Amino acid sequence: MIVVLNPKATEEQIQHIVEKVGKLGLRANISRGVERTVIGLIGPEDVLRVTPLEVFPGVEQVIPVLAPYKLVSREFKKENSIVKINNKIKIGGDRVIVMAGPCSVENKESLRSIAEQVKKAGATVLRGGAFKPRTSPYDFQGLGEEGLKYLKEVGEEFDLAITTEVIDPRHIELISKYADILQIGARNMQNFSLLNELGQIKKPILLKRGISATVKELLMSAEYILSKGNFDVILCERGIRTFETATRNTLDINAVPLVKQLSHLPIVVDPSHGTGRWGLVASVSKAAVAAGADGLIIEVHDNPEEAMSDGTQSLLPENFSHLMADLEKVALAVGRTLQ
Amino acid sequence: MIVVLNPKATEEQIQHIVEKVGKLGLRANISRGVERTVIGLIGPEDVLRVTPLEVFPGVEQVIPVLAPYKLVSREFKKENSIVKINNKIKIGGDRVIVMAGPCSVENKESLRSIAEQVKKAGATVLRGGAFKPRTSPYDFQGLGEEGLKYLKEVGEEFDLAITTEVIDPRHIELISKYADILQIGARNMQNFSLLNELGQIKKPILLKRGISATVKELLMSAEYILSKGNFDVILCERGIRTFETATRNTLDINAVPLVKQLSHLPIVVDPSHGTGRWGLVASVSKAAVAAGADGLIIEVHDNPEEAMSDGTQSLLPENFSHLMADLEKVALAVGRTLQ
Amino acid sequence: MIVVLNPKATEEQIQHIVEKVGKLGLRANISRGVERTVIGLIGPEDVLRVTPLEVFPGVEQVIPVLAPYKLVSREFKKENSIVKINNKIKIGGDRVIVMAGPCSVENKESLRSIAEQVKKAGATVLRGGAFKPRTSPYDFQGLGEEGLKYLKEVGEEFDLAITTEVIDPRHIELISKYADILQIGARNMQNFSLLNELGQIKKPILLKRGISATVKELLMSAEYILSKGNFDVILCERGIRTFETATRNTLDINAVPLVKQLSHLPIVVDPSHGTGRWGLVASVSKAAVAAGADGLIIEVHDNPEEAMSDGTQSLLPENFSHLMADLEKVALAVGRTLQ
Amino acid sequence: MIVVLNPKATEEQIQHIVEKVGKLGLRANISRGVERTVIGLIGPEDVLRVTPLEVFPGVEQVIPVLAPYKLVSREFKKENSIVKINNKIKIGGDRVIVMAGPCSVENKESLRSIAEQVKKAGATVLRGGAFKPRTSPYDFQGLGEEGLKYLKEVGEEFDLAITTEVIDPRHIELISKYADILQIGARNMQNFSLLNELGQIKKPILLKRGISATVKELLMSAEYILSKGNFDVILCERGIRTFETATRNTLDINAVPLVKQLSHLPIVVDPSHGTGRWGLVASVSKAAVAAGADGLIIEVHDNPEEAMSDGTQSLLPENFSHLMADLEKVALAVGRTLQ
Repeated sequence: MIVVLNPKATEEQIQHIVEKVGKLGLRANISRGVERTVIGLIGPEDVLRVTPLEVFPGVEQVIPVLAPYKLVSREFKKENSIVKINNKIKIGGDRVIVMAGPCSVENKESLRSIAEQVKKAGATVLRGGAFKPRTSPYDFQGLGEEGLKYLKEVGEEFDLAITTEVIDPRHIELISKYADILQIGARNMQNFSLLNELGQIKKPILLKRGISATVKELLMSAEYILSKGNFDVILCERGIRTFETATRNTLDINAVPLVKQLSHLPIVVDPSHGTGRWGLVASVSKAAVAAGADGLIIEVHDNPEEAMSDGTQSLLPENFSHLMADLEKVALAVGRTLQ
Repeated sequence: MIVVLNPKATEEQIQHIVEKVGKLGLRANISRGVERTVIGLIGPEDVLRVTPLEVFPGVEQVIPVLAPYKLVSREFKKENSIVKINNKIKIGGDRVIVMAGPCSVENKESLRSIAEQVKKAGATVLRGGAFKPRTSPYDFQGLGEEGLKYLKEVGEEFDLAITTEVIDPRHIELISKYADILQIGARNMQNFSLLNELGQIKKPILLKRGISATVKELLMSAEYILSKGNFDVILCERGIRTFETATRNTLDINAVPLVKQLSHLPIVVDPSHGTGRWGLVASVSKAAVAAGADGLIIEVHDNPEEAMSDGTQSLLPENFSHLMADLEKVALAVGRTLQ
Repeated sequence: MIVVLNPKATEEQIQHIVEKVGKLGLRANISRGVERTVIGLIGPEDVLRVTPLEVFPGVEQVIPVLAPYKLVSREFKKENSIVKINNKIKIGGDRVIVMAGPCSVENKESLRSIAEQVKKAGATVLRGGAFKPRTSPYDFQGLGEEGLKYLKEVGEEFDLAITTEVIDPRHIELISKYADILQIGARNMQNFSLLNELGQIKKPILLKRGISATVKELLMSAEYILSKGNFDVILCERGIRTFETATRNTLDINAVPLVKQLSHLPIVVDPSHGTGRWGLVASVSKAAVAAGADGLIIEVHDNPEEAMSDGTQSLLPENFSHLMADLEKVALAVGRTLQ
Repeated sequence: MIVVLNPKATEEQIQHIVEKVGKLGLRANISRGVERTVIGLIGPEDVLRVTPLEVFPGVEQVIPVLAPYKLVSREFKKENSIVKINNKIKIGGDRVIVMAGPCSVENKESLRSIAEQVKKAGATVLRGGAFKPRTSPYDFQGLGEEGLKYLKEVGEEFDLAITTEVIDPRHIELISKYADILQIGARNMQNFSLLNELGQIKKPILLKRGISATVKELLMSAEYILSKGNFDVILCERGIRTFETATRNTLDINAVPLVKQLSHLPIVVDPSHGTGRWGLVASVSKAAVAAGADGLIIEVHDNPEEAMSDGTQSLLPENFSHLMADLEKVALAVGRTLQ
């Protein structure tokens, strides 16, 4: 922690700060510059978390030196973490994992048909929402447990692992019975009640970045889960909100290599929400794999005209199939595999 | 709903759309322009909510004509809604209501001291967090029920109503016993589980705008609560996230008159989070009242050096007291009162 | 300047940095912390402007301590600067100055009519564009010198000072003959060729904040002008670009008191561009004056149906007149005057 | 153009609009819906550019149907445009073109050394700034014509085409003597004086997206150049400003396929400014090529410790050389070539 004093800070004010931090077990290193005096604090910086040095008399600015996350950081663990979903699927290794399926589970037939086709094209995880967070109270809110049952049945039939979203801490137990991966959606990235409870279960968590969350905040939310004991966290870049309105979100491709620098956790990319336009999904999927993503989560629907949510960003199964063929080439070009 | 076709749309595609919307009970009005054909849909637009016309062949763009919210809209109710907190306090009328207090309830003595001073200066509602949503799992998370008890006791002692945040649907019953207003924080503005349950209780709700929520989305979240039966919703502008880093958030002053145009609900402003710097709070508070806000929610702490959260944006009681005197003049200048 | 080293920085790397900065005339103060070593640099920090310490081996982060601007800063000059426009008008003193007029000068009759009415309502400066920066090459680009002539004639007739925009360094001489204040529009805030030349003339400059410029960048652009010798700069907050699309821009009300803290220069607010909706202009104008703005620049048109640009954000003269009456009360409430 | 009326619009107001647009040569198609009446305007929409229908009595909203650009659009020209730089280099075809070099030209020796290395690695265009737009008036502003001379000499020696930035319309003639491509930087994307003049010369223009410009605005700025007669425009995505501060900008990867859908013009990507961190440049470069970019413009410096600008985002020549080898594989994977 570095404390920059304002030009009029008095000697008494400096001593007040030195004493205060001394009581907290820190040592102060004072640099008296030409225009500003700066105090470097040496010792366990965490004790300052609840002491707002900014408000001390004479202080102009307080600058943290250390990242606020620990367990998720590359410094804490040098090697990439590999999250094991089941005996066949691991996320974070050489193989790029593709999760695909409809935005919402609508009925069993449609889900079965989509699952069959995405499996054939090479996907290994089936996605689908049963509890849907919707901006409008009048929109379709999902089939609930019925949707979970369809997911499990269809997943077993086609040997696909299941990922689905959890939006309420009271649903965790139920959803855990059906799903292999529990997803936290962008709107809940800072729903700390939910994060705390997901830290106490033994299922892999797919944590989506909030639409206006920084990468640091995404890592802090992951830290919540790890700090409670669950280290099986997969991060997900799914686009952020910017001034650009031609696309639903702005996919932050920088976040992929940045997360790899800062953290050992795997990261997947959601090009469907990241663009909001199916015509852009293929290009951005290839970009994500080229940038180093460990996986993709893609919306696929076999009848977008009847889709009950997000039809405009869903690929048709045949387009998904073409994309998988293209992705394989890109994966090989960057030293990964797809299948 | 207006459907813009792409230049290559065929007659069959046009007929396909006309038939589809006809089955949904809508009438299509076709305008064949020089460069584009446009179809206007007449009838109950809501049936289109789950039919993504964007994906129909030949469609270039779909433009909604109506706002997606109803109960919160000015069209639904012309007169301003006035939310009654208790027998003395109403929000949305001529009197500008000021809520003040610490970010977190830390201990009873400090809370008592702050409450006494803000009451004396003219505040009528005491704010204070007992369950705190914190970005870091290592930060102070609040005193929980103990904090609620302090709030109630101190509130009764000084005749102040109580507002405090709820972050988990399982806490609603508990918090309702102690608080007069239940606050939804920015991070939970789209926590729909929470909104749904708050729609079913009989307490006033203070709904804060999410840090990257549009005004339309804020109104949609309010619509969740009203649509479940609770019409006592107070909106709160508390700053949005932008590229500007000199302030914690960018207070969107435009939102105050904009909400007044679009909705009948009252709106209050939080200049503490809206700026993140106590030195800016007074100016922005005056601006909010001048712009037509129905109230303010301001952080006040009598010893910011010991504050366990947000010390940098808290006013000292004496500064709060000066501000209240200034605010009274501004309130009168715009035809309102403060006390 | 503070240099944070990464945990693996070697002693040789530390010495390399110490030597390098030593050659530049700076002294290094080394703090060896538990997890990081930090080097504070003492001496004239400006020499580091072209030495990118970030790329030195072992360096993790470089944190500047001083603001990059000098002449515009409150530290450089404690008292508020007052910019004298002519013998009667000064910006930055007790009186809030209102500039009003059409977006573009369209013809003399219309300009005359608007000028007469805004003068009567209490405006003292007439605004109007003769050279217009337009997003589309097919939009009206302004009347050029003809428009300047109309401004001057009408300004003289009604005793109004003139402010108009300059978009090309080759027009400065011409525009200086007709206008009392030269405006730099948001799109040209970082047109450094233009800034450099405006620094060498003797006219007051109204410098608008760029739509995605931080307050620091606004001050740096002002620094360009002051550093060339022209200290008569008036800053202008006119809204920034955010994710909110219900308004044309998001007026950053925080910027008003923030600029007052950081700089001695006066600041005015443009509620017309800051909202883009005439129905919000009055509320936001009152907010700006309450927040401490030194003036307002407001678009007024007597026939918005025929306005050649920005009709949707222009006030009718009668609405402007009502607003002026309201503004006077707000100005008095914050210890200023309007007339 | 679609005009949505407010619920209280009268028959007289509707007739007023119909008459007005009739005089402009448009036909009105009126749809009377349950809650709103909507008027579709048929005919040459451009005549409405200077008639602000939004301000007509009874109008709630005006929605344009057509894109405001024409010459740059895919509808105007179906095939990709290929911009010829010289006899060997074309941008927009199968070959991905890499431009590389220092941010600023600092001296001839350094430029020569960098040029030699980037040429060997496979770059075909040398970049380097001679006139630098800098946020601070105290930063290095470039060598001016001396820098241009070095660029030309070194370019000829190593058979590299030259691209350099123009910041002032008065420099166009001079720079045209030395450079093969004239660059418009992000800060000048809406410097319309500059765009107008660059539309009248016969050199290829590299037009960088402004830091807060939408893709539509980028295309409008290109339209300025094309509308004056110069069709040789190369667009450049170089990152936009968002709330994320861990990277200098947020590279908008969506923009690459989006521009390909909307326009026939080639697009290149600048991963150096798009990330601001050399450690992210390689990953993002690969992503850009995978997404369909027609080229890259990358900062390379052989001694970043002595670089006079942007050292932190420059690659060392050896890293650039590794990247080129990797990029070749990615280019082949998406059906392009690099060399």
